[in-house]
Order: sequence, then C-alpha cells, then structure tokens
Amino acid sequence: MTHYAPNSWEARAEEFSLYGFTDLPSIRDRGTVVVTHGEGPYIFDTNGKKYLDSNSGLWNMVAGFDHKGLAEAAKAQYDRFPGYHAFFGRMSDQTVQLSERLIEVSPWDRGKVFYTNSGSEANDTMVKMLWFMGRAEGAPKKRKILTRGNAYHGVTAVSASMTAKPYNEVFGLPLPGFIHLTCPHYWREGRDGESEADFTKRLAQELEDVIAREGADTIAGFFAEPVLGAGGVIPPPAGYFQAMQAVLKRHDIPLISDEVICGFGRTGNTWGCQTYDFIPDAIISSKALTAGYFPMGAVMLGPQMTDRLQAAIDPIEEFPHGFTASGHPVGCAVALKAIDVVLEEGLMDMVHAGTGRMEAGLREIAKHPNIGELRGVGYMWALEAVREGKTPFEGTLSVSERIANTCTDHGLICRPLGQAVVLCPAFTLTDAQMDEMCEKLDAALRKVFAEIT
Amino acid sequence: MTHYAPNSWEARAEEFSLYGFTDLPSIRDRGTVVVTHGEGPYIFDTNGKKYLDSNSGLWNMVAGFDHKGLAEAAKAQYDRFPGYHAFFGRMSDQTVQLSERLIEVSPWDRGKVFYTNSGSEANDTMVKMLWFMGRAEGAPKKRKILTRGNAYHGVTAVSASMTAKPYNEVFGLPLPGFIHLTCPHYWREGRDGESEADFTKRLAQELEDVIAREGADTIAGFFAEPVLGAGGVIPPPAGYFQAMQAVLKRHDIPLISDEVICGFGRTGNTWGCQTYDFIPDAIISSKALTAGYFPMGAVMLGPQMTDRLQAAIDPIEEFPHGFTASGHPVGCAVALKAIDVVLEEGLMDMVHAGTGRMEAGLREIAKHPNIGELRGVGYMWALEAVREGKTPFEGTLSVSERIANTCTDHGLICRPLGQAVVLCPAFTLTDAQMDEMCEKLDAALRKVFAEIT
Repeated sequence: MTHYAPNSWEARAEEFSLYGFTDLPSIRDRGTVVVTHGEGPYIFDTNGKKYLDSNSGLWNMVAGFDHKGLAEAAKAQYDRFPGYHAFFGRMSDQTVQLSERLIEVSPWDRGKVFYTNSGSEANDTMVKMLWFMGRAEGAPKKRKILTRGNAYHGVTAVSASMTAKPYNEVFGLPLPGFIHLTCPHYWREGRDGESEADFTKRLAQELEDVIAREGADTIAGFFAEPVLGAGGVIPPPAGYFQAMQAVLKRHDIPLISDEVICGFGRTGNTWGCQTYDFIPDAIISSKALTAGYFPMGAVMLGPQMTDRLQAAIDPIEEFPHGFTASGHPVGCAVALKAIDVVLEEGLMDMVHAGTGRMEAGLREIAKHPNIGELRGVGYMWALEAVREGKTPFEGTLSVSERIANTCTDHGLICRPLGQAVVLCPAFTLTDAQMDEMCEKLDAALRKVFAEIT
Repeated sequence: MTHYAPNSWEARAEEFSLYGFTDLPSIRDRGTVVVTHGEGPYIFDTNGKKYLDSNSGLWNMVAGFDHKGLAEAAKAQYDRFPGYHAFFGRMSDQTVQLSERLIEVSPWDRGKVFYTNSGSEANDTMVKMLWFMGRAEGAPKKRKILTRGNAYHGVTAVSASMTAKPYNEVFGLPLPGFIHLTCPHYWREGRDGESEADFTKRLAQELEDVIAREGADTIAGFFAEPVLGAGGVIPPPAGYFQAMQAVLKRHDIPLISDEVICGFGRTGNTWGCQTYDFIPDAIISSKALTAGYFPMGAVMLGPQMTDRLQAAIDPIEEFPHGFTASGHPVGCAVALKAIDVVLEEGLMDMVHAGTGRMEAGLREIAKHPNIGELRGVGYMWALEAVREGKTPFEGTLSVSERIANTCTDHGLICRPLGQAVVLCPAFTLTDAQMDEMCEKLDAALRKVFAEIT
C-alpha cells in the first residue's frame, strides 16, 4: 500500500488479503501481480503484462489456463448438478464414477477412495486413518509418522508436521511423533567418497535404526513423495524405494506414496511410483487430479489398507470423518475429464516427447559455474544456484528471489525454492514455448549471477 | 454389494468408495442413494426418486440445487480464468475483490482474509495463526484451544480435536491441549431448578475456573459456533456470549466465531454473532460462502488480529502457510455471486419471512409426547426425540436413523444427530415446500414413534 493508488488492484490486494508463502519485501518493492486470465501456459495481469508460467500454477494447471474440454466438463456439471456431499449413504453419480476410474488407473487391482479438498487434507486424513486402524487393531501406540527432510505434505497442523521444512518452527511444529529422516538427496547429503548405492544403503539403514529406536509397534506409516517436489525437485537415488520398502515390509509399516505432485503424468508415467518401480500401500492424490480446475484431494487405499480400514470400521458401523465438499460432483466431473485429458488425450505423451528437449535446454543453462546441480525427471526440474561447488550464496543475497523477480520482469514465472529455481510447466508446452522458457531463464540467471559474483 | 447387480450404481458405489459419516447398516439394508441432479430444494436419484432435502446438502446449498445465477457465475469464470493460486505475491482479480467484499460485509471496519478449501482447513489455519502469534510475541506456551462440548469444527486432526464429539476417540483425539467446556445447552445441561440466567453464569464461571486452572498465558483462543450446528442445533442461553466474552477480554483471549454454518443468513442475519449481539476477534466462514457451489473456507481477521498477525510476520518477512487452491478464482467468483444472492437478491429476506412458518410448523409436530425439545433460530432447527421427559430412547433402537430412513422412504431428507432430527433447508423454500417438509416429517415421526413406544 505504499506507492499504489488507493483504488489500484495492488492496493486493494494488500489492504484486504493475507499473503501465504510470499516474500513480503518483494511485495513492498514490486507490488502484487493481480492475474485476470490465461492463454495456454501464459497468464496475464491487470496491467496487460503476459507471463509464461513455468510452474503451471502450483504444479497443478497441467493442461494450461484455458483448456476448453476441462471448462466444458465443469460447466456441464454446473448445469446438471452443482453441488452435493457424500455423507449419510448418499453421493453423486459423478463421485461413484470417479472412484471407479481412480481404482482402474491405480497400481492395484482393487481398492477404495476417500475424497478431500486438498493434498493437505488427504495427508491429514491418511494419518487419521492410520491412527484409527492402529487403535482398532489393539495397537493404540502405533501413531508415529515417518517422513523425510525437505518433504512437503501440506499445511494443516498435521500435514505441516509431516512437512520437514525449518519454517514450520514458527508454528511450534512439528507436533510430537512426527519423525523426519534424511532427505534422499545424493548431491547434498551424500558424504565424501560415498557412492550413490552406498548412500541408498545408508538411508535404508537409518530407517532400520529409527524403527529399532522408536519401536516398530509405535510407527503408523512412512510417507514419501516419489520425487520431493517443494523440497526442491529431488529424485531419489538409485534403488532407494526398493531398499526402503524392504525395511518397511519387514516391520509391517505401510508405505504411502504422496503423489500430489507426481501423480497423473508429471514424471512421465501415471504415478511417480511407477517411474521408480514400487507399489505403495496407499496413494495421496491432488493437483493434476483436476488439472487445477477444482480443489480436490483423494486418499486411495490399496487392497490391504482397504481391508484394514474396513475391519476397523465394522465394529463401530461408521467411519466418523468427511468434509462437506468430499466428492463434490463438479470436482468429480472435472477430475474424470482431467484423467482422460492426461492419460487418453495425449498430455502424458507430450511429457514423454518433451522431456528430452527440456532436459537438453536446462543442461545448457546448467553449464554456468554458478549452477551446482541440475536435477529432475519428466516435467519437473530444478537448477541449484551456488557460490561455487556445493557452497550456497549468502542468505542475505536472496539469490533465488532475485532470479524469480528478474524472470518475472522478463515475463517468465519460475519458483524460487531455497537457492534453487524450479521449473514444472504445463504438459501442453510447444517446442517454441519450451525454448522461450529456457531462453528467458538463461538471461535472468546470467543477469543475476553477474550482479552478485 | 449384497443384493445389487454388479453394474448397478449401488454396487459400484460400494465397491470403490469409502463412506464418511454414514450409518453402514443402513447402507447394507437400503443401498446407497446415488444422486444425479436437483431442482430447487429437491434432489433426484438414479432411480428417478425425488427427495426434498431439508438439510440443503450439508447446510450449504442455501440457494437450492439449480440456481441459475450461481451456475452462470461459475461458468463465466471457467471461461475467463479457470484456476490460479495466491502464493508468491500473485493472486487473481476475483480473489482481490472477494477479500474486499468479505471485509465490507464483516462486523469490522477493517480486517484481512485468508482462504482455505473448507471450514476444517480454516479452523486448522486459525489455530496455526494463534500458535504463530503466540511464539512471535514471546509466549510459546500460549497453545491451548478452548471449545465446548458438542462443538463441531471440522475433521482435520486439529479441527477434530476442537470438535467435542465422543466419536473422535476412535482416532485417539483430541490431541493434548484441546479443552472442551460445557455445552451451552440449557435444556440438557441445566440443573434442576437452575434458571437460564444462572446457567449462563455457571458457564462463564466455568470458563473463569478453567483459565485459572490452566493459566491464561497457556490459552491461545476460544472458538464457538454462535449456534452449535452438528452438535444438534443448540442456540446459546440468554446472555451467553456477553458473559463469556467479558471473561475472555479480561484475560486477553481471542473469541473466534465459527460461522461455517451460521454465516450468510442461516440465523436470519449475515452473521450469527449479529444475531447474538457480539463482535468476535475473528470469523471462520465456509458453506454458504459459496452456497455449496465450490469448496471454500475463509479465515477473516478483525482489526486487532490483523495487526497481531502482521506484527508476527514482519520479522520473518513471510507467512509460511497456504493451500494450492487458496483463493481459487472460480471459488472467489462463485462466492462474490453467492454473497449477492443471499444479501442483495432476497435470500436472507426469505429466511426472515419464513422463520415464523417454519417454527409454527415444527411447534405443531413438537406437541408429540416423544419430542422432548424443539430448538432453533432462523432456518436451523432440531427436534429432540425422547422416551419421555428428557430420557432418550435406548441406543439399540437407533431412533434417529429410523426417523431419517422413514423420511427418506417418503421422499424427505432430514438428518439424524444423536437422537435429534435436524432441519436446515435451503433459503429458497416456498410455503408449499415448507409445508411438505413439515407434513412428511410429522408422518415419519408418528410412524416411528408408534413402532417403538
């Protein structure tokens, strides 16, 4: 509200809205970007400025910002049945169809689905389910939740407790009983002389040790993103999930794959767990599930978890949990269409086809001496800025904010994460748009690195 | 899946969907009601059966199931801009406008808004905000949350901990630090010979005692629905909020009004706190906020809380919280229209005009000796079934499920809650529909009471 006219969009935004996950000095210096509409992977602000959004919103707008088929699916459902719940043994026909479809595209031959409005709620719900099953099975101590450093699982108090980011300390989180293992980031966490295979072995041993220390009978589940997303796009080291799952199975601890980012094509397959060749006990889905056209999350339980949950419910004849908009008919209609768009209408094929061009473009950029690592898979990549080697820039330089702001000036949106810059575009990107993304990013990086080195 | 053909809607629902808040014996006996479309306050199932939904979905579909203006608002926004977030200093123009509008219709002359996807997330977010402010102010012990017996604040682990219902014990909830005061239900909780005024005094004294016992410096906030909703529609005793707020103010404890159900007209005013004549420090909104046409929740902070939060954020330059779909442009466009529909286009006036007819109709029904209490306000009422006096029926009789199922047979949906039956219809009800609701309910009650007495 410093330098904007009282009735400007920027002033109105600042006066009435609280900003989440926003660098406030950037707002003070640059004002809010108030967005009015989109075209393909581009968005436009109230000043008519156009931006290529290389984040596809928040990883979720995988079909771009004006997909006709998705809009039509939503609109048709608004005309047919614009809202209902899934309590008391009633649910919409769209909800029934979506559950069937989700299990059809799941890694399992059977299973069941519970709906939420977000990935946060889905992770929170999964934790409640695990606590519920433990108590029903006579193991009320089975409550601890294992996740990994830099994991992001959401922002409810419980899903934020699973999110292993230092910023949650300001809330007095994590709550007790949420244990964060080593982030599976070989480049950063691997020791001098340690091979990738040895790094994997060490992490599996750490899991074994934590289970021994805490007691297997106190651990309700292990949650993992196949590729850590908001942790900075961190693919696992080779053999990681096989090694971890072997330990978990030995101790009868479920492995829950948080596919909020990876699910529905981001890694080049329907699920991230397929890309890394493991079958989880449950899947958390959101984001691309509706291509960002509707808030929705889903807990998908595989056969064993379905049976465990049902056995826990049977004696009390009701599962006392659910959100007002769980299984909202418009959300389900949108998701049914989004799944088709990604899996049947060519979007996932575009990721396959485009991955090589994206990686090649970024590899060129990564030759810059101030890029320490390029990492990623499919359409999720990060470039890690460094002073040199693996040494980060001084925090006071706010290097990734500088890069992001410089990109924004040039009409490119990319995301600063720690000292990395994340690229996770819509699956619909043309070759020309891919090249535009890489060129603008390269120019911004050169400009910022020249300023601070 | 017992007696339905494998491809029937009922069988498909049971095979793939998990049921929340559903009496499973009823499903086994009667099958799932799979809903396809609506007309005004009516819904239709896959067998063509028509039901008057006296719950308006889950209190939320206040404009009925086919409101053209709301559908048009959603559809127009899907054509304009179908999705975006509110992170990183960007947000949609719809989001900016909705925050401005919400503060305009709030009880305060200034304030700020944070968006979530549900009331659960909004309460969970408010708790995180309180914890965050406490720590920033050098009071990290200020974490305890006060709510009341029978309160319903949601289903995330934290909002379920605020929800004072015995069923949450199956999850091992509440978490430590969530304290449940006496439910302000004079009919049930008042002592022999105790006047309503004395009951209110006792509850205020209880609050005073709890604060003394726990220490004011350990208590982050007091949350209350103006009328407890899912607790069974419980209006407060006379003078309740005045007495409670006096105690809270003395100890500098914020009063948060959970207006998820009461907000936007349900009690006959914009806010329930207006109906009961108090000004809270913050408001939690959801449900009627979008008339059920989109999942959305909002935390609305009054002047003091806005300043406290801002002061807590300033040193760290970022509020590290937010949901992917916070401030979704379609949700905001829908909410802008829903607020107009309720406040400007006559829906709240219909509640005013219809309350007398609803109360009169239910008062007739309440003459039955097996109705112990009729209670409510505006368009939210409950009839409490009793064996006699204040003595409930035997639990094994499942009396409210019987009533709800009998109503369903007769084409009326109403909600069993404990041994009460809840009526919270759309605000659009015509006189004839109101009479239909009362007649069908009366017939069902007479049938069930005849069977079990």
